[in-house]
Amino acid sequence: MSLQNDLLIRTARGEEVQRPPVWLMRQAGRILPQYRAIRARLSGFKELVSTPSLAAEVTIQPVDELDVDAAIIFSDILVIPEAMGLDYELIEKVGPRFPETIRSAAQVEELIEGNDAAERLTYVYDAVRLTKKELAGRVPLIGFSGAPWTLLCYMVEGGGSKTFSKAKRFLYQEPVLAHQLLEKITTSVIAYLKLKIQAGVDIVQIFDSWAGVLTPVQYQTFALPYIRRICEEVQSVPKIVFAKGAWHALEEFADVPCDVVGLDWTHDPTEARERVGPDKVLQGNLDPCQLYANVEDIERAVQEMLTSFAGRHIANLGHGVYPDTPLEGVKAFVRTVKEMELIL
Amino acid sequence: MSLQNDLLIRTARGEEVQRPPVWLMRQAGRILPQYRAIRARLSGFKELVSTPSLAAEVTIQPVDELDVDAAIIFSDILVIPEAMGLDYELIEKVGPRFPETIRSAAQVEELIEGNDAAERLTYVYDAVRLTKKELAGRVPLIGFSGAPWTLLCYMVEGGGSKTFSKAKRFLYQEPVLAHQLLEKITTSVIAYLKLKIQAGVDIVQIFDSWAGVLTPVQYQTFALPYIRRICEEVQSVPKIVFAKGAWHALEEFADVPCDVVGLDWTHDPTEARERVGPDKVLQGNLDPCQLYANVEDIERAVQEMLTSFAGRHIANLGHGVYPDTPLEGVKAFVRTVKEMELIL
Repeated sequence: MSLQNDLLIRTARGEEVQRPPVWLMRQAGRILPQYRAIRARLSGFKELVSTPSLAAEVTIQPVDELDVDAAIIFSDILVIPEAMGLDYELIEKVGPRFPETIRSAAQVEELIEGNDAAERLTYVYDAVRLTKKELAGRVPLIGFSGAPWTLLCYMVEGGGSKTFSKAKRFLYQEPVLAHQLLEKITTSVIAYLKLKIQAGVDIVQIFDSWAGVLTPVQYQTFALPYIRRICEEVQSVPKIVFAKGAWHALEEFADVPCDVVGLDWTHDPTEARERVGPDKVLQGNLDPCQLYANVEDIERAVQEMLTSFAGRHIANLGHGVYPDTPLEGVKAFVRTVKEMELIL
Repeated sequence: MSLQNDLLIRTARGEEVQRPPVWLMRQAGRILPQYRAIRARLSGFKELVSTPSLAAEVTIQPVDELDVDAAIIFSDILVIPEAMGLDYELIEKVGPRFPETIRSAAQVEELIEGNDAAERLTYVYDAVRLTKKELAGRVPLIGFSGAPWTLLCYMVEGGGSKTFSKAKRFLYQEPVLAHQLLEKITTSVIAYLKLKIQAGVDIVQIFDSWAGVLTPVQYQTFALPYIRRICEEVQSVPKIVFAKGAWHALEEFADVPCDVVGLDWTHDPTEARERVGPDKVLQGNLDPCQLYANVEDIERAVQEMLTSFAGRHIANLGHGVYPDTPLEGVKAFVRTVKEMELIL
C-alpha cells in the first residue's frame, strides 16, 4: 500500500520537501491520556509490548491525537536481550532489571544470536503487520532497535545506571569477551531489523542511548563499528542513528552508511551541520524541557530551530518526550513545524 | 607556612614545572579503607562533614595513603543551600533530598544570601584551619563550591535526577525568578569561597556537575555568567572550573577569568587544547572506569593521557573516582603520573 504522507521517507532519502516532517521519540506513551487509560487496565508494560493488538493501538494513538508525520512501533529495546536468552523485568518507577547479568565467556557462549534470536520475536512482527494494516498508509511506520553498546549496557549492568560503570568495567577487563558479546548482539539486531522491515516498517532508527558514557576511543572501538555493520547490512529502507551524548563522534557519523543522524539537545544545529557535512539528513533536537514553556515560547523556539537547521531536517526532540510534558506543549511543537509549510 | 610541595599551585599559575601535579576528585572517600572505618562508626555523612576534626582527618587520609599532590577539604556542595535556609537530608544509597524545594518568589525572597549565609558555615572554616595545621605545608589544600546552576538544580529538583527536568522546567517557566535565585546563590558562593580562602585554602575548584543537562543557549544564559562573576570576585588564589558535560562551552571558558579548566573523559586532550586556546591550564581527564583495568593498562593509559596533554596540565580523572575502584588502580594512576618526572 502506498503512503499518503511519505514526507519522512522522502526527507530521509535526501529529497527536496516543502517542510520538515515531525515526530517525537516516545510519542506513544504517558503524555497521551489514551495511553494512560490502556496502561491502567493492564498488569504491566510488558503485557503491552507483547500483545500485538495493544501495541498497534498505542502506536497509532499519537497519529490520531498529535497529527505527527510518522508512527513508531510501540516496543522496547530490551526485547533483543530477552530473545537472546536474558530475561528482564520492568519494575514500576525503577526501570528494567535483569535477574541474571553477563559475566563469563560461558554465558556469552550460551546466548542465542542472529536469526535464531530474532525469530523468537513474532509478537513484534505481528504488531508491525497489524499496525500497518490499521494505519492504512496514513503515515510511515518506524521500526527501531537499541544499538549493540546500549544493549550490552543493560545485559552487563543489569539495569539503569548514571555511570554504567559495571558495563564500562567489562570493556576494560574483558575486551575480547565484550567484542564477542557485541558481535552476537549485532547479528541479532541485523536479523531483527530485517524481519521488522519484512513485516512492513518503512524506516528504522537505531538508539544508542548510552553512547555518552564512553570515551571517544571506546566509542570508536566498541560502539561505532557495530552500528556501521548494521547500517551496511540492513538495506532497502532509510536508517536513522541516534547516539545520545556522543558529541565527539559527529564527524565519524558522516562515514557511517546511514541516512539520518539524530542529535541531542546539546548541539547547535548550525555547528552540527558543519561537523557532519552536507550528506546526512539531521534529526532533532529541541530540548524536551522546552515543551514545559508557554505556547508562544515553544513556537518561537521551534521556529528558531527550523531556521537554524535550514532544511535536510527531521523535526524531533533531542531526547524522548518526558512523561509529564503537557499535551498542549507537544501539540504546539507539532503544529509549529507543520505551519512552516505556509512560510516556505 | 610555606608549602613543601607547591606543584599544584605553580602549575595552576602557569609556571613551568617538572611533571604534572596529580590528585583525584573524591579522593577522600569510600575508596580508602581508613575512610570506610571512620564512616562505619558514625551516624551519617553529615556528621562527618560538620565535625571539623573528622573532616580534617578524612581530608588528609589520601595524602598519606595515595601520596597525591593536593588535599581537598572534605565537605559537600549542599552546605550552601543549607546555609541559605534550605535544609537537606542524605539518604544512604539514594543521595540528597530536600524536604522543601524552591517554587515561588516568596521562597526565593526568604533565602539568606551572601555573607549572612556563608558566615553560618563556621564548621567548614574550622575544618580548613585544622586541616592546614595538621598538613603542616605538606601539600596545598583545595577548597570548593558547587556552581550556581548545579546548586539551583538541587534546590528546585529536590534531589538527584537523570534529567533534572524540574530544574530545567523552572528556567523555562520562571526565568526571572531563576536569575534572582542564581544571583543569591552566587553572592553566597563568593562569600563562602572568600571565607574558605581566609581560613587557609590555597586554591579553589568550582564544580558545575549538572552543566551537561542544559542547552548551549541555556548554559550561556543561566550558568556561565554566574561562574564568570565568581571568578572575577574571588581573587588571591588560583581557580579551577569543572563543568561536566558542557562540551559545547569549551571555547567560552577561554574568556572566563579562571586559571584551570577541568575536562570530563569525553574530551580528546589535543582537541580540547585547540578549542580552549593556549592560556588556560587543563585538568583531567582519565575515564574513572580505566582504574578498573589491570595495572599495566592503567600505566599505558595514563602515559598516553600525559603525552596527549603535553604540559600545562593537572592530572586527574574526568569525574570523581567511583567508590568501588580498587585501591591498587588508584595508586597505579598516581604513581604513573609521579614517575613522569624521571622521563621529562
